Amino acid sequence: MFLKDIAARIDAELVDCDPGIWIESVSPLDKAVKGDISFFTNVKYKDAADKTKASAIMVSKKDAGMLSGLPLMLVESPYLAMAEVSTFFMQDNRPAPGIAQNAYVAGDAVINKSATILPMAYVGSKAQIGAKTVIYPGVVIEDSAIIGRDCLIYPNCSILRCCRIGNRVIIHSGSVIGSDGYGFAPDGSTYRKIPQTGIVQIDDDCEIGAGNTIDRATFGKTWIKRGVKTDNLVQIAHNVEIGEDTLLVAHVGISGSTKIGKHCILAGKTGVVGHIEIGDDVIVGGRSSINKSLASGSIVSGTPAIPHRDALKVYATIPRLPEMRRQITELTKQVKELQKKLAEVSDGYK
Amino acid sequence: MFLKDIAARIDAELVDCDPGIWIESVSPLDKAVKGDISFFTNVKYKDAADKTKASAIMVSKKDAGMLSGLPLMLVESPYLAMAEVSTFFMQDNRPAPGIAQNAYVAGDAVINKSATILPMAYVGSKAQIGAKTVIYPGVVIEDSAIIGRDCLIYPNCSILRCCRIGNRVIIHSGSVIGSDGYGFAPDGSTYRKIPQTGIVQIDDDCEIGAGNTIDRATFGKTWIKRGVKTDNLVQIAHNVEIGEDTLLVAHVGISGSTKIGKHCILAGKTGVVGHIEIGDDVIVGGRSSINKSLASGSIVSGTPAIPHRDALKVYATIPRLPEMRRQITELTKQVKELQKKLAEVSDGYK
Amino acid sequence: MFLKDIAARIDAELVDCDPGIWIESVSPLDKAVKGDISFFTNVKYKDAADKTKASAIMVSKKDAGMLSGLPLMLVESPYLAMAEVSTFFMQDNRPAPGIAQNAYVAGDAVINKSATILPMAYVGSKAQIGAKTVIYPGVVIEDSAIIGRDCLIYPNCSILRCCRIGNRVIIHSGSVIGSDGYGFAPDGSTYRKIPQTGIVQIDDDCEIGAGNTIDRATFGKTWIKRGVKTDNLVQIAHNVEIGEDTLLVAHVGISGSTKIGKHCILAGKTGVVGHIEIGDDVIVGGRSSINKSLASGSIVSGTPAIPHRDALKVYATIPRLPEMRRQITELTKQVKELQKKLAEVSDGYK
Repeated sequence: MFLKDIAARIDAELVDCDPGIWIESVSPLDKAVKGDISFFTNVKYKDAADKTKASAIMVSKKDAGMLSGLPLMLVESPYLAMAEVSTFFMQDNRPAPGIAQNAYVAGDAVINKSATILPMAYVGSKAQIGAKTVIYPGVVIEDSAIIGRDCLIYPNCSILRCCRIGNRVIIHSGSVIGSDGYGFAPDGSTYRKIPQTGIVQIDDDCEIGAGNTIDRATFGKTWIKRGVKTDNLVQIAHNVEIGEDTLLVAHVGISGSTKIGKHCILAGKTGVVGHIEIGDDVIVGGRSSINKSLASGSIVSGTPAIPHRDALKVYATIPRLPEMRRQITELTKQVKELQKKLAEVSDGYK
Repeated sequence: MFLKDIAARIDAELVDCDPGIWIESVSPLDKAVKGDISFFTNVKYKDAADKTKASAIMVSKKDAGMLSGLPLMLVESPYLAMAEVSTFFMQDNRPAPGIAQNAYVAGDAVINKSATILPMAYVGSKAQIGAKTVIYPGVVIEDSAIIGRDCLIYPNCSILRCCRIGNRVIIHSGSVIGSDGYGFAPDGSTYRKIPQTGIVQIDDDCEIGAGNTIDRATFGKTWIKRGVKTDNLVQIAHNVEIGEDTLLVAHVGISGSTKIGKHCILAGKTGVVGHIEIGDDVIVGGRSSINKSLASGSIVSGTPAIPHRDALKVYATIPRLPEMRRQITELTKQVKELQKKLAEVSDGYK
Repeated sequence: MFLKDIAARIDAELVDCDPGIWIESVSPLDKAVKGDISFFTNVKYKDAADKTKASAIMVSKKDAGMLSGLPLMLVESPYLAMAEVSTFFMQDNRPAPGIAQNAYVAGDAVINKSATILPMAYVGSKAQIGAKTVIYPGVVIEDSAIIGRDCLIYPNCSILRCCRIGNRVIIHSGSVIGSDGYGFAPDGSTYRKIPQTGIVQIDDDCEIGAGNTIDRATFGKTWIKRGVKTDNLVQIAHNVEIGEDTLLVAHVGISGSTKIGKHCILAGKTGVVGHIEIGDDVIVGGRSSINKSLASGSIVSGTPAIPHRDALKVYATIPRLPEMRRQITELTKQVKELQKKLAEVSDGYK
């Protein structure tokens, strides 16, 4: 594509660029060669920008001054522009529609004609696979599970009995949707399994990372709402609800029956106890422990989680604890000394 | 089933109920409709109980007073009763016995006639599968592995070479039983692999969550004893022993050669170092770090773990650290001031 | 093998042993019987050594004095010797070469004649499998992925599109190599996926644990260099680089674009933020949080991570926080009292 055509499609203004240059791909500043578009998102990369061989650099109007003299494309958000321009150069890897001979598809499964079922995949009885959806090798879609259209279910995922996946959902390799919730009733000596009779429902436009485990509900459904994106190795327990466009980063774990609102971000390794409610637009720092409900708009960190601003002060204080302890010991000694001396002075005065 | 028949089977006393009503299912208080049985286990749900449409509410005698006037079933443990009554309404999803045409079963594997091997499953040479056990699609049972009777091995699990699984064991999707232990000997510049020649043994009535990794022993066996229940994404290293009826919650990790007793509970994200012993009936709070042996009956939390009662006080103090630091600075100033003034007074007096 | 032949092969000196005894296997001290070789690596096991029935105990010259009178084999490193001797007794489990009838191999995949593709494995278009490599059941090797020679890719792993694996690499069950990086650009209301167009490259002699997730790069490659060993359930984000011979223990997570040097050890449950650099020979204690770059040779622990020596003092102080708070309150009271009394004395004096 010519640079001027790319600029037109993403509504970018060209500055000091050759609009007629032929663009081959998108690359980071330090790897780009002539014919590449690059992007500038962080002042850390100013040096790389000065040295880049890219034929154009996408940059926000705000940061453009820093790069004056370089070939620039002024955009609203270079990150977003990079995401969009990258798609112009992507090969379509979606395999041809049809059911591979080496796949297993139950006779009463309903597979859309434009869907792809690759070899070594399994689709159970009464399962449904929507239009243009791809079921990769090693995937198991159990009986009565429903997968919408334009989904990508990557290798070795397990979508278990009766679970429902919306449209344009991506599930990365090795994830498990619909394992039994962790529910046991102590009977005095051992534990009795509580049947997990519900399902998992994942709504449109979600992306589930690799190696996730999302448990089915005891009753009703575990519910991942529209636009949720999870990173890898995330654990979501039975009857949890995750609101629209919420992000759960790697190694996050959410305990049973907890509800999380929309547009939240839970950073890596955060844990959330069960049976609480987290509002909308909540941001939780990495490795935090949430043990009570949080109002919408909260920004918290730590174990236990406290307002992030306070947590930063706590984190700054922790390394000084041994020093603080010594100071307290010293103060205690000095105060005793003072008490003794004052008593002497006081006595002497009398 | 008629309500009176259910009550008779679980030995419950009916209060203000219609014993002749036909019951269709078990539901939580807020979702229940006429014809449902519900259950009351937590005072948080008092409102939901007052508004429920359930035809009967299972409740402990202790809590019954709170719900007077509602249709009640008095039971010992509503949680246990709910577990039991749920099973009355469960469909039997166990597929018909037999080896699917699209499964791979080695010629010398020993498959009980009442076992089920579903399509896309693999059973290796000299492996044994017990009566009524179901091997779901995508499961790999390697050579010489032995699976008992009445087990459910869910999709895409890997039960590796020579491992032994008891009776009535459930292993959820994506779990790995018998990966090599993490053992390397430094040879000065790089690492040399220590062969992992042992196995994993999982005894009767265990339930292993989804996405678990349980490593085989260097020598001998990694041993998961009767009735252990693990949640999802739990890591158990080589030569670990977990005692009967112990619970390991999601994201827990146990390092090599550690022994954990019976009836313990390790809450989510807890980590345990290697080569230590944890007694029986030990309870460990979420995200704790256990770095030394613990006596039976210990209740601990934190990093490093200390008695839980003390840990609660520590957690309550942590947010006040910056304030404490300011106080120490202020006290130091005041004490210096006092020392100076006292010296003046003392000098003046002399 | 005769003991004298083993001793000769590993260059060990026999003390109080019968060099002509026939050795059957390697065993830990407490399990060994006559005809076994054992090893002594930790003073904790002195009792077990005194009671062992092993025919020879591998021990360092330094520790030999502790075990005088017992049948000893003096070696440089008993751990390394144990690793080596174990291999003498290992059965070769590598299956016969060839492509199983029940495997799926694309017509244009390139499979070395000495490689093994087991039943239920999938090898996609233009993929390459090197000499003597074994692809176990349930493994998915996607299109254009390249696997070197002498590799073991264990059951149910997913090696995705275009990823490159070197020689003598072991990947344990259920691991995912090449899932999409977690990259989304907020567009004001929801998130837009940033295409992940790079690959994962794993160099020679690496061993990847079970249930790992290693994401492909946004551009370029996520790079695991020669000799890296990861434990189970490790998460490695897009564009990360891990240096030669570095160890990542279970549940470790590395965020995007971070570079880690050679010969580092990151203990279990440690998390590392994105876009930082960790030098060579860095050691990080368990459950640490690394939020800024670290110089080579650093030894750190904690959240946030500080020098390990200081962290030990911090950990020792934390349980005393409630006591420290009481002391501060008490000191504040006493200082006020002193101020008052001193004022009185001072006034009286005037």
